[in-house]
Amino acid sequence: MSGKTNPGNFFEDFRLGQQLVHATPRTVTEAEVGLYLALTGSRFPLHSSDLFAGACGLEAAPLDDLLVFHIAFGKTVPDVSLNAVANLGYADCRFGVAVYPGDTLSTVSEVIGLKQSSGGETGVVWVRSLCLNQVGESVLQWVRWVLVAKRNLEAAAPEPLVPELPEAVPYAELEVPEGFSAAGYDCTLAGSPHLWDDYALGERIDHSDAMTLEEAEHQLATRLYQNTARVHFDQLAADGNRFGRRIVYGGHVISIARALSFNGLANACRIAAINGGRHVAPSFAGDTLSAWSEVLDKAPLPERADLGVLRLRTIATKGRRCADFPDRGADGKPDPAVVLDLDYSVLMPRRN
Amino acid sequence: MSGKTNPGNFFEDFRLGQQLVHATPRTVTEAEVGLYLALTGSRFPLHSSDLFAGACGLEAAPLDDLLVFHIAFGKTVPDVSLNAVANLGYADCRFGVAVYPGDTLSTVSEVIGLKQSSGGETGVVWVRSLCLNQVGESVLQWVRWVLVAKRNLEAAAPEPLVPELPEAVPYAELEVPEGFSAAGYDCTLAGSPHLWDDYALGERIDHSDAMTLEEAEHQLATRLYQNTARVHFDQLAADGNRFGRRIVYGGHVISIARALSFNGLANACRIAAINGGRHVAPSFAGDTLSAWSEVLDKAPLPERADLGVLRLRTIATKGRRCADFPDRGADGKPDPAVVLDLDYSVLMPRRN
Amino acid sequence: MSGKTNPGNFFEDFRLGQQLVHATPRTVTEAEVGLYLALTGSRFPLHSSDLFAGACGLEAAPLDDLLVFHIAFGKTVPDVSLNAVANLGYADCRFGVAVYPGDTLSTVSEVIGLKQSSGGETGVVWVRSLCLNQVGESVLQWVRWVLVAKRNLEAAAPEPLVPELPEAVPYAELEVPEGFSAAGYDCTLAGSPHLWDDYALGERIDHSDAMTLEEAEHQLATRLYQNTARVHFDQLAADGNRFGRRIVYGGHVISIARALSFNGLANACRIAAINGGRHVAPSFAGDTLSAWSEVLDKAPLPERADLGVLRLRTIATKGRRCADFPDRGADGKPDPAVVLDLDYSVLMPRRN
Repeated sequence: MSGKTNPGNFFEDFRLGQQLVHATPRTVTEAEVGLYLALTGSRFPLHSSDLFAGACGLEAAPLDDLLVFHIAFGKTVPDVSLNAVANLGYADCRFGVAVYPGDTLSTVSEVIGLKQSSGGETGVVWVRSLCLNQVGESVLQWVRWVLVAKRNLEAAAPEPLVPELPEAVPYAELEVPEGFSAAGYDCTLAGSPHLWDDYALGERIDHSDAMTLEEAEHQLATRLYQNTARVHFDQLAADGNRFGRRIVYGGHVISIARALSFNGLANACRIAAINGGRHVAPSFAGDTLSAWSEVLDKAPLPERADLGVLRLRTIATKGRRCADFPDRGADGKPDPAVVLDLDYSVLMPRRN
Repeated sequence: MSGKTNPGNFFEDFRLGQQLVHATPRTVTEAEVGLYLALTGSRFPLHSSDLFAGACGLEAAPLDDLLVFHIAFGKTVPDVSLNAVANLGYADCRFGVAVYPGDTLSTVSEVIGLKQSSGGETGVVWVRSLCLNQVGESVLQWVRWVLVAKRNLEAAAPEPLVPELPEAVPYAELEVPEGFSAAGYDCTLAGSPHLWDDYALGERIDHSDAMTLEEAEHQLATRLYQNTARVHFDQLAADGNRFGRRIVYGGHVISIARALSFNGLANACRIAAINGGRHVAPSFAGDTLSAWSEVLDKAPLPERADLGVLRLRTIATKGRRCADFPDRGADGKPDPAVVLDLDYSVLMPRRN
Repeated sequence: MSGKTNPGNFFEDFRLGQQLVHATPRTVTEAEVGLYLALTGSRFPLHSSDLFAGACGLEAAPLDDLLVFHIAFGKTVPDVSLNAVANLGYADCRFGVAVYPGDTLSTVSEVIGLKQSSGGETGVVWVRSLCLNQVGESVLQWVRWVLVAKRNLEAAAPEPLVPELPEAVPYAELEVPEGFSAAGYDCTLAGSPHLWDDYALGERIDHSDAMTLEEAEHQLATRLYQNTARVHFDQLAADGNRFGRRIVYGGHVISIARALSFNGLANACRIAAINGGRHVAPSFAGDTLSAWSEVLDKAPLPERADLGVLRLRTIATKGRRCADFPDRGADGKPDPAVVLDLDYSVLMPRRN
């Protein structure tokens, strides 16, 4: 080995408080916007039309919130999760200022928690990541934790520290893009008459549509995000693993679920926070995804008359329809078809 | 069912004269242009080079005519054909002002015909659709008719009305993009010396090239157009249908046929009208498409010395070469390899 | 046959000194940039971030060197290699001025060598091609030679002329994009601390990552470049050939190898020349590519203190890891897994 190749960080390479400046700043353009549409079929009008966005007070159509998430997240992979055994969770994910074509994004992270596993071969690393635009504004921040392998099993275990994380991002801290007002929001052009007022606590929505995944599609998406995690691209390695398949990037599954959720949640025009999420099972090319959502909570947005918050739980399944809302069984275990269980907060216009 | 999901319109939901304002306005950008090239391999220079288009008097390279068609058409699907049993035909499709990156497109439709089927379980709906840019100019209008299921078989049949439709768009009504002149058209850069003058009535051209379809490609294309018709995306549902396969969006087949037709019709620089079209048979991933064209008619363009009209019929086949121009057999039935039979009018520079 | 279809040039159609003006000028945009990222997963920061490029003195992020190569090259296919039996080699490929979104590229070629094969059924054609931007600056020039079929076996053989070609582009003739300076180059953001000074003559680097090819991906890439070579797209024809498969465009393999080489050569920020290259074996969808590189030579860049040249040889394999640097065997034959053997010169910042 020449030593020039990046082997990624192992558990013993992380230190509490360590700052990671991630590589590959990215100027996002209309290309990412168009490709994201082609990859997901998303129809949320705020991200589709400059005119629609302009009527809502924005300077142009901002990038889809999840597109920003994936690009921001992708930058952390070479430093955080190249040697990850498992992605354990997300929390406290807050969407900040809107991102427009031409903006340049970069991501930094801080190690905020460490805990070696009892077996001593792996450890959990918590990082808080922050994605900034070219003028230093936060476009996104989030915490994730991953189970990372040790290279040297003899390396001493660090003092364990498990960070405290909020169960959900407080509604008062959700950010509305600067200038945004729902006064000019047009429900007809948005494709649904159902506003925040119309959703009930506990309501469950079968999103009805479905999408079959293809290898070329998830690879294109994951490379678009410059996410280098090998399990998504390397069939030769996959031939020898327990699945025998390339694993679809979990973020692609989130994006497909969100795009499917348009049918029932068309006016959920802004993802303001991801409170938590779990990739319950891996997805593979050929799987057909369906989705349903549940309204976990409903609240006016503090200091705004035009917008309300829905806290949603969206479940995606593979190879199974969601008309009967597949969920946990009597044993508490998820239905075997479930691949994603996402807890997030959206902003939706209120009836005035 | 929460009632939030759009079930689409059924036959009894349509009323004569009904106006449909379709959702999801779309700002088209260079991303759509680039993706369209990647999806089709089109080489028509007017849509490929700002300089070439500028030499022809245009402000920039306009979007490919069919790209505009697909985006405009896609918007009608959730309101018109979500419950379609069959897409029966197109007519009177007129291309209007040129579309440039940055334009925002939206589509409205009017119900212009209704006829319940004799069995009473379905009915034919005719709609005239109009796609407008951000300043209200028509970029495209067309009529299509679809066979739509009834939800409630007891619903009363409407008074039948079958609209009269022109057999072809009159040449005098074909629109030339504002500012366009063939004076600066460069045949060498366009890739062919054959101008309008060189084509003969009844001439048949084997386009010679071929293209194999892939699932990821037609899905990417159809999502790019925000066309939500389920048969293109849902393999789980397809597993139970008579084909067992996702059906390729017919518009993707049209685009591939048009891209193949470059080899023989390179100077057909503008599709001005689609007079009629029939998807004779479905196409699936793995099919290899070929195409040939016939010159149905040839006329100078009224009031223009620089451009002529060719009325063309382009036939696309799957799994079969077109050197012998496969068409209808002695029994009047199409050759079993034929998937598309399209009747359209193109503008082509004249020799000066 | 109507005579409208371009049959391509056969060996007897070429004349020494013949000038070929290739069709389809192309305005390149952010769409090509985004698609190239999605297709290759490239992470070289100069092409990813306007800010990073700006810190290096450039007006914006220039297009990836290989993206320019593929677009320039694609234009030559209909005139040069439509009837090629084999692509024999490249040489003397020099990258010129940087290409930015909005530039319009066109390509011309001159026939600089001809030699009929001894059997009389084919001949080798050498062409020097030049790709220019909209103000006539050279963005790329290169020589390639192809074995082309004769249509008329009775056609007389031309006087043979085999052009002399440099073994490598002299370092003094390598071009640095105008305004570029490595003074503002940020290694952290680039993703690697290893600069020109750190590489040793003969050093070998296993790039460690791998990428599995898909039909949809190589077809999208090749169409994006408007490269019409039939072997990449036509499965029906492939069914009858010796491989039974569509052949992946060799340029896509080069791009994947270059993207993989980021892991070990992240600061090779500019391909300045391709000295020679050989597609040792064809690649097909489903193949998993790996790559390794060897430092063939190392020199300061004449008249520059900020940049050095590495002459590299990058080998790509399919279905085989490169940790043991697969190469020629004792018999001088390439390892059967090798698909690409590329000799090129890159610029890399020097430690100041």
